[in-house]
Amino acid sequence: MTLKIGVIGTGAIGKEHIHRITHKLKGAQVVAVSDVNLEQARAVVEGENLQAKVYERGVDVINASDVDALIVTSWGPTHEEFVLASIAAGKPVFCEKPLAVTAEGCRQIVDAEMAAGRKLVQVGFMRRFDQSYRQLKQVLTANTIGAPLILNCSHRNPQSPSSDFSGDMALTDSCVHEFDVLRWLLDDDYVSAQVIQPRKTRLCDAELQDPHVILLRTRQGIHISIESFVNCQYGYDIQCQVVGETGTANLPEPASVPVRREAKLSSDILVSWKDRFIDAFDVEFQEWIDATVRGEMTGPSAWDGYVVALTGDACVKAKYSGQIEPIELPECPAFYR
Amino acid sequence: MTLKIGVIGTGAIGKEHIHRITHKLKGAQVVAVSDVNLEQARAVVEGENLQAKVYERGVDVINASDVDALIVTSWGPTHEEFVLASIAAGKPVFCEKPLAVTAEGCRQIVDAEMAAGRKLVQVGFMRRFDQSYRQLKQVLTANTIGAPLILNCSHRNPQSPSSDFSGDMALTDSCVHEFDVLRWLLDDDYVSAQVIQPRKTRLCDAELQDPHVILLRTRQGIHISIESFVNCQYGYDIQCQVVGETGTANLPEPASVPVRREAKLSSDILVSWKDRFIDAFDVEFQEWIDATVRGEMTGPSAWDGYVVALTGDACVKAKYSGQIEPIELPECPAFYR
Amino acid sequence: MTLKIGVIGTGAIGKEHIHRITHKLKGAQVVAVSDVNLEQARAVVEGENLQAKVYERGVDVINASDVDALIVTSWGPTHEEFVLASIAAGKPVFCEKPLAVTAEGCRQIVDAEMAAGRKLVQVGFMRRFDQSYRQLKQVLTANTIGAPLILNCSHRNPQSPSSDFSGDMALTDSCVHEFDVLRWLLDDDYVSAQVIQPRKTRLCDAELQDPHVILLRTRQGIHISIESFVNCQYGYDIQCQVVGETGTANLPEPASVPVRREAKLSSDILVSWKDRFIDAFDVEFQEWIDATVRGEMTGPSAWDGYVVALTGDACVKAKYSGQIEPIELPECPAFYR
Amino acid sequence: MTLKIGVIGTGAIGKEHIHRITHKLKGAQVVAVSDVNLEQARAVVEGENLQAKVYERGVDVINASDVDALIVTSWGPTHEEFVLASIAAGKPVFCEKPLAVTAEGCRQIVDAEMAAGRKLVQVGFMRRFDQSYRQLKQVLTANTIGAPLILNCSHRNPQSPSSDFSGDMALTDSCVHEFDVLRWLLDDDYVSAQVIQPRKTRLCDAELQDPHVILLRTRQGIHISIESFVNCQYGYDIQCQVVGETGTANLPEPASVPVRREAKLSSDILVSWKDRFIDAFDVEFQEWIDATVRGEMTGPSAWDGYVVALTGDACVKAKYSGQIEPIELPECPAFYR
Repeated sequence: MTLKIGVIGTGAIGKEHIHRITHKLKGAQVVAVSDVNLEQARAVVEGENLQAKVYERGVDVINASDVDALIVTSWGPTHEEFVLASIAAGKPVFCEKPLAVTAEGCRQIVDAEMAAGRKLVQVGFMRRFDQSYRQLKQVLTANTIGAPLILNCSHRNPQSPSSDFSGDMALTDSCVHEFDVLRWLLDDDYVSAQVIQPRKTRLCDAELQDPHVILLRTRQGIHISIESFVNCQYGYDIQCQVVGETGTANLPEPASVPVRREAKLSSDILVSWKDRFIDAFDVEFQEWIDATVRGEMTGPSAWDGYVVALTGDACVKAKYSGQIEPIELPECPAFYR
Repeated sequence: MTLKIGVIGTGAIGKEHIHRITHKLKGAQVVAVSDVNLEQARAVVEGENLQAKVYERGVDVINASDVDALIVTSWGPTHEEFVLASIAAGKPVFCEKPLAVTAEGCRQIVDAEMAAGRKLVQVGFMRRFDQSYRQLKQVLTANTIGAPLILNCSHRNPQSPSSDFSGDMALTDSCVHEFDVLRWLLDDDYVSAQVIQPRKTRLCDAELQDPHVILLRTRQGIHISIESFVNCQYGYDIQCQVVGETGTANLPEPASVPVRREAKLSSDILVSWKDRFIDAFDVEFQEWIDATVRGEMTGPSAWDGYVVALTGDACVKAKYSGQIEPIELPECPAFYR
Repeated sequence: MTLKIGVIGTGAIGKEHIHRITHKLKGAQVVAVSDVNLEQARAVVEGENLQAKVYERGVDVINASDVDALIVTSWGPTHEEFVLASIAAGKPVFCEKPLAVTAEGCRQIVDAEMAAGRKLVQVGFMRRFDQSYRQLKQVLTANTIGAPLILNCSHRNPQSPSSDFSGDMALTDSCVHEFDVLRWLLDDDYVSAQVIQPRKTRLCDAELQDPHVILLRTRQGIHISIESFVNCQYGYDIQCQVVGETGTANLPEPASVPVRREAKLSSDILVSWKDRFIDAFDVEFQEWIDATVRGEMTGPSAWDGYVVALTGDACVKAKYSGQIEPIELPECPAFYR
Repeated sequence: MTLKIGVIGTGAIGKEHIHRITHKLKGAQVVAVSDVNLEQARAVVEGENLQAKVYERGVDVINASDVDALIVTSWGPTHEEFVLASIAAGKPVFCEKPLAVTAEGCRQIVDAEMAAGRKLVQVGFMRRFDQSYRQLKQVLTANTIGAPLILNCSHRNPQSPSSDFSGDMALTDSCVHEFDVLRWLLDDDYVSAQVIQPRKTRLCDAELQDPHVILLRTRQGIHISIESFVNCQYGYDIQCQVVGETGTANLPEPASVPVRREAKLSSDILVSWKDRFIDAFDVEFQEWIDATVRGEMTGPSAWDGYVVALTGDACVKAKYSGQIEPIELPECPAFYR
């Protein structure tokens, strides 16, 4: 059976996912698209050589009778509406982050999905599908280093992702992947957040605080330190070290040719998140397609999106209070366990 | 357009390729199979849930009207016959190594293919499709380390691949991948071979010489050393270092979690060639399918299979003579350049 | 000229320094020793084959007319008295940590030394003499990674150094080396401290909090994280990473043979601080001897000892308050700059 | 007791050893020197502030009544004469390589020393005193990787050591350290040599063959490959990998700061042999002094110098014959075992 997919939002990332589903993955077909820019939607259909209908409104994609499942890659503030409409239509939906621009919006989605009585929503936290994170999780699961006590993480980007990158987006936008993947890695939840503003780099907009250091504490008492440095200049570099009772384990470095040259032994560091997570996106969508066809939903859930939103909110609060702020998560409903 | 494939030989590797084409890759469908063990062929069709016809004879698969292209994964000595028949039928054929069990047999295939006037044959040398070899080739192409002068290579296997592994199979069977990939890496050809028999490991059959060191010289004078050690115990480990005029470059190690534990900093070494080259097989077949659909043949050719066979023969000769033996390649026909 | 040295305290570390000066270093001779255990002092003189007089009291060593300079390696609480007496005698003194058991005691020594009008006191912070820290400092000084913004440090010990190790000694005893070397590395001072108590390891005394994470902020705003984990099981491991505006730099790992064996690529991790810093001790004492002979004092000063004591006190306070505690350093007197 | 040393030859390396003995090592004093350039000898005595007499002739240094032991660092062709004279005088002598410029000359020294009935001669093969080679030998001795079967070694230099470097000096001059240290590492002897002349680098004198690959076989059948590349451009790089029955072990890399910067993770490679072996020279001379004072001779012997000379000769022969040439060692006399 081929999963028939409707895509809402055919900008850069929407287009990439359409290409992926059409030319690399198995078991799915894009049959409907829409975008606020209709011309662009049409160009994508043509460029990718799709047999797909172009709709003016996202909601029409959702309700199209030949659409089995949705991918929402439109402008962030529109996500909530489209996800709710998909739930209302009883159709599985893959939503790129953010699930909603507020924690309250995420909560609405959680409530709607529980009311629908069936898991329909997956959020685009792709790190869970990355081979290196999976290798690290295997080491933890195998108890190779004992119970985890401390995590030391870095999220470094060569330059601010875009000129819109401002204010607290490091906390609410780029670190959301950390917030999600570390909970998954530890199978634990956060209880408090603190945000430290170290000496600023001079190599970015003067208004921007960069780097940040985010400290999280989990229910089990695990201490997590996340350095977010979006203008680190040297590369796109994701680090994660787990310190356990009997040892430590690190995320592997991406494979690169060791070269000896000009008095240096060196290997390349990636510079783009796309290169870093290109395989993870393929795995993420293939697993989503396969699970959806089986009638399951196995990836990051609406609840995960909600928890991440609450965590981001706590971080913003902590940044301005300078205090350790509690993260008050409601108990996770049985529905999501 | 979907490429309709017939598979001759549904043993371990044939079955794996069928699974790969059916469940992981795009653009192809297995529609016909055969095996000397008909029961097994039927079991594979059922197990993989194929819409495929089972034939008693390989030649019937080749001639089936709905078969566009062939994959030959039968017992080695039968390859030559099936490849020649595929050429005679004017159908593209992917043949696992060996192309033929003798250099003379390979030459027949080369001649038949040239007579047919169109490249139809691809040989299963998968290392050209491995990401790490491609990264290394990029470094060479970018002239990062200057002109290559020396290659230091190792091909290590934990234990002899099987109980049949005997005599000179290290030279004629396992090293063929080295012979192919190094020519491709350097864009060069071999002119002589020498084989050294170092002190033998005691951890293998007493009759087996293990390890061997094979020395090859290329037209450009590049010196290549290949250690073949099929009972190295510790893991499956493929190493390649290129020494150039201004630097050196190595094949990257497979990504693995660095662990600190019990007074060691360690990372895992793979133990199976399947894990090492699993992604390369996917790339190899996807590229073969895509090229075949476009009417092209871009992978290792019959000529490459022929050269590898001549190289293996020269190595066996050199092993017993103890001398540096010439490798007398005919000039590569324009057809294959 | 040979520097004639008196050593007060001939326990484990005193004996080692005596051996070092006598058998490995140049330009000095141990001519006088004392210890609360006179027998032991005599045994050391005999065992090391010294031409040295044994005194009952430390103060007699200090005042011995043939003693040019002192080494204080007695029980911690006696350091202050012996250092003050050395200053009073106008003799250079090398004092193992702690300089005094209270910050107030350190301050007394600072005041006495300033009153004496000449730098006489060096404190045994040996990391400044370690080759790897010096290499790291060179990288910073060369501006290879731009201005430092963040430091990520770990101080890990396989087991609590001794059964006496208790309470807050991680903060006041083992981390003092971090407090000293990081100020030196950055040429900066601390302004505040915070102490986090992560989930405890079960592999130590139940009363002990282990690990700790100490967060320091410098005048320049640099954020420092020091993990102190004295029962990490796996080895003695000192890590330091500096994140700068344009790159990062790490302390090199101690050189070790890379071994491939049993499906692991591994290298040894040290298990004892003695092996880690054995060369640093030699350099430390040779440089102290050479400088002392020249009439100079170039190592960690009494002021450095005082600052470290104040930092330790702030950490203890922060541990119990759970707050970010200020570190209120008096301005560094011109005498020490 | 202080060992009173006479130094014959106060050129660059002689001067360095004088400095080392005088300012870094224990237990010895330079009391006599000579050089063909008397002015230079006097300048060294003055510059190093020695209490040493300057002699016109090396033989007068040897016979000076206050000289206990000799260091020969004069021009290579004079070594044989000075070593023989030292033996005749019954005085221990440390001779920098070559022991003599011909194997026959080395043999003379061996015979003279045996006739004298006491080991007096040590040859300046400093790699045996290098920490990294000692670590590697420990791994072999501990049987961590089983019995050695193959060694892969490289000796790379950024540029030809000097303008005099010509002809076969790679074989007879720079590789002598490899020839010595590998015998010591394996506790074995060579039985044959082969020399391969790979494609030449264009980055050196047109007359020079560079690199060479030297293949040695030991009595135990161990296969050794030594790449000698004296114009490799990128650094001074000594590599040694031992392949054993159950694993492999490599010489550790010199410790260096790992830096992430400009899309590279890199560490420095040394560029000078002096930096690489600076500590080994200190250990070599300290151990020589200590052993000499005890009346022993524990370092590389005259026999070792002789074997190395024979090995070099066989390599030159092999280079021009293109054949595998036997290395016909006389049996090692009991005197040297």
